[in-house]
Amino acid sequence: MNSLRQLTCREARRSGATGRVLPFQSTPTNRLWQRCFSVTPRIASQLAGLDPSKLTITKTTTPKELVSAKDLVFGKTFTDHMLAIEWSASKGWETPRIVPYQNLSLDPSACVFHYAFECFEGMKAYKDKKGQIRLFRPDKNMERLNKSSSRIALPTVDQEALTRVLGEFVKLEGRFIPDTRGYSLYLRPTMIGTQKTLGVGPPGSALLFVIASPVGPYYPTGFKAISLEATDYAVRAWPGGVGDKKLGANYAPCVVPQLNAASRGFQQNLWLFGEEEYVTEVGTMNLFIALKNKETGQKELITAPLDGTILEGVTRDSVLGLAQERLVPDGWTVSERKIRMSEVAEAADEGRLIEVFGSGTAAVVSPVRNISYRGQMVNCGLQENEEAGEIASKMKQWIEGIQYGDEDHPWSYVL
Amino acid sequence: MNSLRQLTCREARRSGATGRVLPFQSTPTNRLWQRCFSVTPRIASQLAGLDPSKLTITKTTTPKELVSAKDLVFGKTFTDHMLAIEWSASKGWETPRIVPYQNLSLDPSACVFHYAFECFEGMKAYKDKKGQIRLFRPDKNMERLNKSSSRIALPTVDQEALTRVLGEFVKLEGRFIPDTRGYSLYLRPTMIGTQKTLGVGPPGSALLFVIASPVGPYYPTGFKAISLEATDYAVRAWPGGVGDKKLGANYAPCVVPQLNAASRGFQQNLWLFGEEEYVTEVGTMNLFIALKNKETGQKELITAPLDGTILEGVTRDSVLGLAQERLVPDGWTVSERKIRMSEVAEAADEGRLIEVFGSGTAAVVSPVRNISYRGQMVNCGLQENEEAGEIASKMKQWIEGIQYGDEDHPWSYVL
Repeated sequence: MNSLRQLTCREARRSGATGRVLPFQSTPTNRLWQRCFSVTPRIASQLAGLDPSKLTITKTTTPKELVSAKDLVFGKTFTDHMLAIEWSASKGWETPRIVPYQNLSLDPSACVFHYAFECFEGMKAYKDKKGQIRLFRPDKNMERLNKSSSRIALPTVDQEALTRVLGEFVKLEGRFIPDTRGYSLYLRPTMIGTQKTLGVGPPGSALLFVIASPVGPYYPTGFKAISLEATDYAVRAWPGGVGDKKLGANYAPCVVPQLNAASRGFQQNLWLFGEEEYVTEVGTMNLFIALKNKETGQKELITAPLDGTILEGVTRDSVLGLAQERLVPDGWTVSERKIRMSEVAEAADEGRLIEVFGSGTAAVVSPVRNISYRGQMVNCGLQENEEAGEIASKMKQWIEGIQYGDEDHPWSYVL
Repeated sequence: MNSLRQLTCREARRSGATGRVLPFQSTPTNRLWQRCFSVTPRIASQLAGLDPSKLTITKTTTPKELVSAKDLVFGKTFTDHMLAIEWSASKGWETPRIVPYQNLSLDPSACVFHYAFECFEGMKAYKDKKGQIRLFRPDKNMERLNKSSSRIALPTVDQEALTRVLGEFVKLEGRFIPDTRGYSLYLRPTMIGTQKTLGVGPPGSALLFVIASPVGPYYPTGFKAISLEATDYAVRAWPGGVGDKKLGANYAPCVVPQLNAASRGFQQNLWLFGEEEYVTEVGTMNLFIALKNKETGQKELITAPLDGTILEGVTRDSVLGLAQERLVPDGWTVSERKIRMSEVAEAADEGRLIEVFGSGTAAVVSPVRNISYRGQMVNCGLQENEEAGEIASKMKQWIEGIQYGDEDHPWSYVL
């Protein structure tokens, strides 16, 4: 088999940015950018696009033993194979290949190691009652992958073509998807810059790969509400930054604040923003707040708006969509709006806070018991013996019903 | 020889963060953090420190041909060897090893590919007239490396020990350092998280490596002043963020704004901050502004303060130190203070702007001819036939004099 060593080491054809002063005119780097990296897909189409019909499959000769369902740990064990597609600024996307799961062999000057040229997606494949494999809204992940990659001068890819080859990969790995409700195969599409140069510039070569890890339910014994610490000393994202993209760059800097919160007994930290202390995200999830509106008394489900400082979560979007469809008829309003932490605390004090929950691919929804904020503990509306509110419970049921194909819905994509 | 494939693939001993909800108490992850990742060096000392006396050297059997001086391109060709030191949360720093320059072989789930667990340094080795090899203020680089790594839960390292093994590596590669003034060996210490898990948490294993690239003078035919575009639509850093650390995360997001500036004919972009449009950094350099103070008429050399939004440049610090020592006696004041772009434009309009220059390891200083700002072109004080102002020229001469050992100075470190 052709190893990924060959794949990733191949010299990119272009010379790359040099770190020297550019002449005061249209430069080669510059023209290259215009040709290859523009967010406008039309321009990029001059290079070879991803062609699913060319997919090659090299099967492993040493299939792994399945890990027993109870021992599955998120992102720790992987399937037999991986999907790998190389890109270069001179040739575009090369042959998509499914190869045995294997190490990547990269020059130590590869730009992914130095300048964080990396972005990724998180999605899952589910087995329904008939044994069919399903993805959940893969179009949303593909769309976001392109938004992320183009923001850091990595190439974009045809979304349907990538979904097709991803589907072939998932079908090949079908035996790793447990057929028990709550279990799934976590998929991690990842794009990295592979160009061998220390010059800071647009990568002339990249690798898109997908690995897959079987995972168990986030709450094996039912919901368990979490406690949050509101972080006011560190900032995750800001207007004009890249906090709305799924870049590696957004993750490493969050670990120390998360560990600090953990050291004080909190499961996650809640990122506030600005002097107004707007509620943005929680750990690696979006956040939803259900309260009775102070003015109108109406029940309102609130999440932060897509202003560039929060990740555009697929689960967030799904919660919003289902809320519009299924909660609004029951008298709820659904709002994407900024809300201050002090407003949340006030609603709690006044008995208007109904419930709070995070949303994300891992847990679907994650109910919040309380939030530590400015020395007080804001109670988020759960009774002591309660681990989830009504809306969180409904959302989990609704979304999983679609994911596992119990409900026929356009969001579920049968492979 | 032991290959880096082995080095980097070795299973980390700890199980790592799982992505699951942590129990509401002191957790293993949590305790691990307290033991290993704290910014307090004392705590980390319970693990093995870096021991320079254990350094092993495996020489290449296929030495490279030297690239002729005129063909050297920044960060494109590398020396025969690399320095590599592994770390794990269970054992601390392992044996430092100089091995032939070679690919890194890493599991595709390694956290460096997904969450940007990576930080680096940029420094140079110089050959003086006697043929001695010198480093410039290596203590500053080592100090900053530790600040960077601890901010993203990577380990810290004994600074003197690392300087010693780095020195051995540089001496071994001495033939790659041209003995012509202006030439040097660019050194790239890099630390990456290698743990094989998709769980977002502190890496349980890491690799510190150093690669070296011979480089020519930034201005082979003398200074060439650059034009900047002030960027107001994207923001590089934010208070409470990580913009003052040398993390990979700070670089990829800057490339698109840089390319946008280049597409309009500017060599670099200038990052402004906030409604006040404070001047922060230029591309990958710090910025200095020399003007006559509006109130006092006194000559003032200004650079942005270390408020968390700018990189703590070693050259920046050196320019400040030399300015205090050698410009203040001539009637200059030296200020680390916030300055609005509108103040710079006003000084230019009023004939008070003396000169502007960037500072960084690559160019030492980089004179600025003009800055495009809100549709106007701010002239930075150079005559049409002039490529550098007096202060920039002096600084380059002073700093290079120290770097190449013409001047005996404590900042120069003879290997």
